[in-house]
Amino acid sequence: MPVQDLTPTPDAAARNGAVESSVAEDEAWVWAQIKAEARRDAESEPALASYLYSTIISHSSLSRSLSFHLGNKLCSSTLLSTLLYDLFLHTLSSSDLLSSTVADLRAARERDPACTSYSHCLLNYKGFLSIQAHRVAHNLWTQNRKPLALALQSRIADVFAVDIHPGAKIGKGVLLDHATGVVIGETAVVGNNVSILHHVTLGGTGKVGGDRHPKIGDGVLLGAGATVLGNIKVGAGAKVGAGSLVLIDVPPWTTAVGNPAKLVGGKEQPKVHEDVPGESMDHTSFISLWSDYVI
Amino acid sequence: MPVQDLTPTPDAAARNGAVESSVAEDEAWVWAQIKAEARRDAESEPALASYLYSTIISHSSLSRSLSFHLGNKLCSSTLLSTLLYDLFLHTLSSSDLLSSTVADLRAARERDPACTSYSHCLLNYKGFLSIQAHRVAHNLWTQNRKPLALALQSRIADVFAVDIHPGAKIGKGVLLDHATGVVIGETAVVGNNVSILHHVTLGGTGKVGGDRHPKIGDGVLLGAGATVLGNIKVGAGAKVGAGSLVLIDVPPWTTAVGNPAKLVGGKEQPKVHEDVPGESMDHTSFISLWSDYVI
Amino acid sequence: MPVQDLTPTPDAAARNGAVESSVAEDEAWVWAQIKAEARRDAESEPALASYLYSTIISHSSLSRSLSFHLGNKLCSSTLLSTLLYDLFLHTLSSSDLLSSTVADLRAARERDPACTSYSHCLLNYKGFLSIQAHRVAHNLWTQNRKPLALALQSRIADVFAVDIHPGAKIGKGVLLDHATGVVIGETAVVGNNVSILHHVTLGGTGKVGGDRHPKIGDGVLLGAGATVLGNIKVGAGAKVGAGSLVLIDVPPWTTAVGNPAKLVGGKEQPKVHEDVPGESMDHTSFISLWSDYVI
Amino acid sequence: MPVQDLTPTPDAAARNGAVESSVAEDEAWVWAQIKAEARRDAESEPALASYLYSTIISHSSLSRSLSFHLGNKLCSSTLLSTLLYDLFLHTLSSSDLLSSTVADLRAARERDPACTSYSHCLLNYKGFLSIQAHRVAHNLWTQNRKPLALALQSRIADVFAVDIHPGAKIGKGVLLDHATGVVIGETAVVGNNVSILHHVTLGGTGKVGGDRHPKIGDGVLLGAGATVLGNIKVGAGAKVGAGSLVLIDVPPWTTAVGNPAKLVGGKEQPKVHEDVPGESMDHTSFISLWSDYVI
Amino acid sequence: MPVQDLTPTPDAAARNGAVESSVAEDEAWVWAQIKAEARRDAESEPALASYLYSTIISHSSLSRSLSFHLGNKLCSSTLLSTLLYDLFLHTLSSSDLLSSTVADLRAARERDPACTSYSHCLLNYKGFLSIQAHRVAHNLWTQNRKPLALALQSRIADVFAVDIHPGAKIGKGVLLDHATGVVIGETAVVGNNVSILHHVTLGGTGKVGGDRHPKIGDGVLLGAGATVLGNIKVGAGAKVGAGSLVLIDVPPWTTAVGNPAKLVGGKEQPKVHEDVPGESMDHTSFISLWSDYVI
Amino acid sequence: MPVQDLTPTPDAAARNGAVESSVAEDEAWVWAQIKAEARRDAESEPALASYLYSTIISHSSLSRSLSFHLGNKLCSSTLLSTLLYDLFLHTLSSSDLLSSTVADLRAARERDPACTSYSHCLLNYKGFLSIQAHRVAHNLWTQNRKPLALALQSRIADVFAVDIHPGAKIGKGVLLDHATGVVIGETAVVGNNVSILHHVTLGGTGKVGGDRHPKIGDGVLLGAGATVLGNIKVGAGAKVGAGSLVLIDVPPWTTAVGNPAKLVGGKEQPKVHEDVPGESMDHTSFISLWSDYVI
Repeated sequence: MPVQDLTPTPDAAARNGAVESSVAEDEAWVWAQIKAEARRDAESEPALASYLYSTIISHSSLSRSLSFHLGNKLCSSTLLSTLLYDLFLHTLSSSDLLSSTVADLRAARERDPACTSYSHCLLNYKGFLSIQAHRVAHNLWTQNRKPLALALQSRIADVFAVDIHPGAKIGKGVLLDHATGVVIGETAVVGNNVSILHHVTLGGTGKVGGDRHPKIGDGVLLGAGATVLGNIKVGAGAKVGAGSLVLIDVPPWTTAVGNPAKLVGGKEQPKVHEDVPGESMDHTSFISLWSDYVI
Repeated sequence: MPVQDLTPTPDAAARNGAVESSVAEDEAWVWAQIKAEARRDAESEPALASYLYSTIISHSSLSRSLSFHLGNKLCSSTLLSTLLYDLFLHTLSSSDLLSSTVADLRAARERDPACTSYSHCLLNYKGFLSIQAHRVAHNLWTQNRKPLALALQSRIADVFAVDIHPGAKIGKGVLLDHATGVVIGETAVVGNNVSILHHVTLGGTGKVGGDRHPKIGDGVLLGAGATVLGNIKVGAGAKVGAGSLVLIDVPPWTTAVGNPAKLVGGKEQPKVHEDVPGESMDHTSFISLWSDYVI
Repeated sequence: MPVQDLTPTPDAAARNGAVESSVAEDEAWVWAQIKAEARRDAESEPALASYLYSTIISHSSLSRSLSFHLGNKLCSSTLLSTLLYDLFLHTLSSSDLLSSTVADLRAARERDPACTSYSHCLLNYKGFLSIQAHRVAHNLWTQNRKPLALALQSRIADVFAVDIHPGAKIGKGVLLDHATGVVIGETAVVGNNVSILHHVTLGGTGKVGGDRHPKIGDGVLLGAGATVLGNIKVGAGAKVGAGSLVLIDVPPWTTAVGNPAKLVGGKEQPKVHEDVPGESMDHTSFISLWSDYVI
Repeated sequence: MPVQDLTPTPDAAARNGAVESSVAEDEAWVWAQIKAEARRDAESEPALASYLYSTIISHSSLSRSLSFHLGNKLCSSTLLSTLLYDLFLHTLSSSDLLSSTVADLRAARERDPACTSYSHCLLNYKGFLSIQAHRVAHNLWTQNRKPLALALQSRIADVFAVDIHPGAKIGKGVLLDHATGVVIGETAVVGNNVSILHHVTLGGTGKVGGDRHPKIGDGVLLGAGATVLGNIKVGAGAKVGAGSLVLIDVPPWTTAVGNPAKLVGGKEQPKVHEDVPGESMDHTSFISLWSDYVI
Repeated sequence: MPVQDLTPTPDAAARNGAVESSVAEDEAWVWAQIKAEARRDAESEPALASYLYSTIISHSSLSRSLSFHLGNKLCSSTLLSTLLYDLFLHTLSSSDLLSSTVADLRAARERDPACTSYSHCLLNYKGFLSIQAHRVAHNLWTQNRKPLALALQSRIADVFAVDIHPGAKIGKGVLLDHATGVVIGETAVVGNNVSILHHVTLGGTGKVGGDRHPKIGDGVLLGAGATVLGNIKVGAGAKVGAGSLVLIDVPPWTTAVGNPAKLVGGKEQPKVHEDVPGESMDHTSFISLWSDYVI
Repeated sequence: MPVQDLTPTPDAAARNGAVESSVAEDEAWVWAQIKAEARRDAESEPALASYLYSTIISHSSLSRSLSFHLGNKLCSSTLLSTLLYDLFLHTLSSSDLLSSTVADLRAARERDPACTSYSHCLLNYKGFLSIQAHRVAHNLWTQNRKPLALALQSRIADVFAVDIHPGAKIGKGVLLDHATGVVIGETAVVGNNVSILHHVTLGGTGKVGGDRHPKIGDGVLLGAGATVLGNIKVGAGAKVGAGSLVLIDVPPWTTAVGNPAKLVGGKEQPKVHEDVPGESMDHTSFISLWSDYVI
């Protein structure tokens, strides 16, 4: 398979146009990329060819490939792969979920410098795979098929160590980077184009039910190990530093850091940034010198 | 299966009476609930019925169901499910362990608003399942069957990402919520009615053996990501905030937060609360405003 | 199998001599220990004997045993154990990797008081197993067999919840204790005799590629949940406290703690310690009293 | 599930009418029977309920149930159940194959006194399952997808010990009773309403290709261990005794027995019977006394 | 394990005495032999030690070992090994079934010169394993648990290519040698000390139910490929030659051979032998010269 | 992959020359064919590509491919594929066994008109696979590793329904066509270029050990269901008809048929043929008309 089979990425302008075209075209373009990447890799690495054919090349669509892959990853001796495959295929083929899947693939490809191909994300990113499986669980939840939704949540938690309650609402273009240890509660909402690092918690507090989990705005970046608790808002474009504990609303386009978290610039006039942290993935620019505090 | 098969929960007074009756009656009541829930779910969700029959409905007792479920979850190509099933069934049928299992099921059902049925906990809660498997490992450890106890610890760590040394002593009515990333060391002791969130560490320090891990009193709440190190005491009814690092004894009924942790109210006269945090699950009431510190 | 089959550990002086002898001799000594331990355990615990024979006793060398064990742990329905076994055996038999494996076994045995035998580490330590599998992935990466290296990384992340990019360089004698949740990025470098607790992140920042991850010097200790971000240096012999967030170079032989981290003793004249923290595993001596800060 | 859920079998006249109705109605009737039988059995035998739900009750159609069951029976570590399920479902849903499946179910139910329910045949009859899987292989063969057809033949031969070349043409209403050891060659043709006992061979002779296997007429009965070799005809309604070797055409409505076979009644005026042996299943009426030959 | 651990077989007289003692003693003696053999083999063949420990040495009784082995052999993705293990253990521990198991082990050990140890039979003889599993199926059948009995028959037919209807009654001390292709119908009865070679059929005829299969007397030998059809009697001590077709009663202590079968010596005064063919296993002494018939 | 990648078969003369060259060259030629066939099939049938890559294309030699395939086919939950792969690879790589494997592949390709490619035989022919696995078992037997040899025999008997005692000696260029039900005893010897159809038995008689099984000369053809019992000789070039029972020596180049078998042409002057029946595969030319015998 010659390298030129790999269609060059259309430039930004062209792709912006594509975004406006139908989901089907967008999905077709990404799926063609993925198949070409997989063929190239199968050619160069015979030891992996069987895996690439079974997971990607033999399938006729992205939703079939993804359903097959998730079915095999999430099955157990008591939840057979054929059952899960059927369930995933039925759900993931819908136009709405497919556009979310494509947006998530693009998010990983564009924001994570370690993600050098779409197929790499599709096959190997446990964060990506967890979100796709969660979308199926969420779909079941909204149809009141709760026991099956919870069984699926449990399998995702066992296999990927990512625990997303099926009631949680997750936007499009979301990146769960590394993903291990992420916990997202039942009434949490995550906007579009959000990036969430590993060990992040969007948790509740207390033993009372109801709306009790955080709402994360569009374009937010939540650093590794950030813990956000309670029915609070993290405003659009905000950034939460690694290891921070956030218990109070974070204003849009500001940065909260520390345990307990403080707003960079102070609570009265917090510093406002202009880039979209969920896309720039800048974790660290708020600090560059050791402080004077002595410990 | 009509819904009325679900025996209504006895009111609190009645159940207090039940607590005094034998473990067998208590177990029988919970097991009847679980079977009724599973039958109802199997009826409403055929895709899950096979799973519910194999894990719950076909079994004659809670300990058989749990042993079957754990055997299938924790088996590997070199530790067969039949061996584990036999081992679990032998141990988990004892009256003492059975009463702990029932208390843990109640803890999840009462403290976690996302836990809407006993069967949901039994089937899907990796924290609950990790503790039950740990009790078997601990039982082996106390009989000096250490290699088998350690092999079991390893399987729990692989499958659930929960690492509890078989030497650790865990009380009854303990909730491991979400559970991913919990680490509990060899000489740690956890009291009754404790609630522990995910990513909590009860660790040692240094490379010397002996008694080197924390002792957690009854009714304590340890927030997500809390790290407690060394042979220290966290007193009964104390609370440790999410992400806190605790290296010094925490007095009973007080709250320690931050990294490194500080006592809420100050070290001289720390604020004392009255509710039992391990049961109220209140993680956040100690803070409600951004502080004045500028970063 | 009489207990005297267990060759007594040579004293320090003798072993120093052994270090200078060939890797083959060193490997032979450790492998003989492991087989003797496994035979003793199989004799005392028939329920575990099958497992011990298949994983250890039936094999003719440490690299065969390890390859078999990793192949069975990391295989999936689409990446068969036979393929992985072949791959691991080919790579792990090299003299260089074998000496690293032996040094890692010694690191666990000497630094972790819960590690009471070499075979316990070989069979049960997910940190040890993750590093060995990573060495194979790294070897593939340096041969430009990137898709296979990334597939292997993905399996390690799924099975052990340890996410080490195959590009990362890891020294010898490294201990990943508990290991769940460890994340190490593509351009990270970890020196010799480093000890890393669970939930530690050596991460990048931003969405630009290139050299963007931490460099950890020899003998460093990184406490549980420590997050180190960016292309910074943690100097030889430094210590990072549990839960700390480090975004700036840490001088050699100093201690950084807190979120964000501060240098113990102050940034001007940080306190310098003399022991090697990666070997002493002292996590906590920098603090012994509650501070006066009121929260 | 009360027994009256089991729709009574329509009487013969009614069913004759049903035969003329569409395949869909016929399939619907049989499928309703199968589900009712499975529900009754699940109710009476909890240990089997999980199996019955996963193979029958949870499915929405006969072709889905059959595809799931065959996929799980015929899969291997290198031919995954999801792939086979997809393949079977695609093929077995066609109206033509579905009518053959239904006719085969009826054949077993009506001719084999040991077959006391349709679900028993669907789940347990390796002859029935082999023919259904063969129909898929034959379908692939006629589309010139020969390697996949041959791989499927191989799995049927391994799992059921039934070896039917995908080129062979098999009619409707065929019963393979017991089935172990049946061999049917590439150019064999089997008519409708044929009954074939175990160990029967429809083989070729010589090493030359081309049309070289037997043609079996409608309503034929081939007794256990009968060996029919070469491009010969066994006429409609003929019977071949158990253990017979047939190398010459058998006239319609006659009986051939022995090794080598002879025509009952003599080759000049062979005895002609009137019942349809493929349906009456009478193996033995041609002989009732020990002959006078001395051995 | 020194060879002298293998208790010498008691001489015939002694063993006759043992036969009169309790089943428990007899079982204990055979089980001790099996464990000693397995230990000796594990010592001499490390590659097999894991298998021998898991199937034999780690178990505390013959019925546990056999239940474990059958559970693993007969399980499928929809009938889990844990379910089968439980079922087998419950049934095979009964004193009556245990004495049958022991008698079958002795039959193989004494009559088959290729069977050089009891453990060889227990582990490897598909005929022995099929009969033991059939006894469980028959037990279920007599308790009217027919669907489970039939599911078990189906698994035995798939895995061992031995098809015994659960209604069939099989005596003690029965040897199924090689076993592939054996078919035994619902109303067949097989006496004690019978030996049956592979491909033997005890079949019915016609499509009418009721008592329709052969009755085989004590001590009978049925040669390879013998086909016995209909509700006929094969008298005690009779012998049926390989490949024979028998449709008429065979008198006791006579020999029937050929297709169709003839009585050796003629039907009027058939030759009577004195040895017990089911024990002597003499297949061929009735013929020693080519006959004069020209073909 | 263009079709021209398939090297044209050298004509007979050229290949005769090749036979004289080294085994290595011969194996290389066949292996190149197999890989080219597999690549062509993978290209034309994506659903099979994963299977073809994992079993053939990803391997560097015929013995690796075969060892992988057999390991996956013959493994069980207690005999892992990695163990078997290692064992097979070690044995099947020897020059002697490799030349036998190649001769067996050629035998199937040249004699069986249904065998249209070498890869078809390698992947799908249970007779071919049984013989290759038997060669490994026989090799173990001759090294006195009898328990492992017998365990392997048992797996072959379970998986392929082919029961060859590891003591039996099998020549080169042997075809087991269809193979189900073949039984070959401990002291049997099979010459070179023999063809054996399914259900053939080379059995012993009596319960005494020692040399008790048939010796089959070079070039013999044994028809389907032929039963040959006792320590007798079937001379070179002889033919045994389907379903025949042979208890007496068969002279070279003659044909024995019937039950009990008679020599074609009579015992005094049996008819002698000139072709090699093991290669011509002519099963039936001895009979072309119904005989006059009345039954």
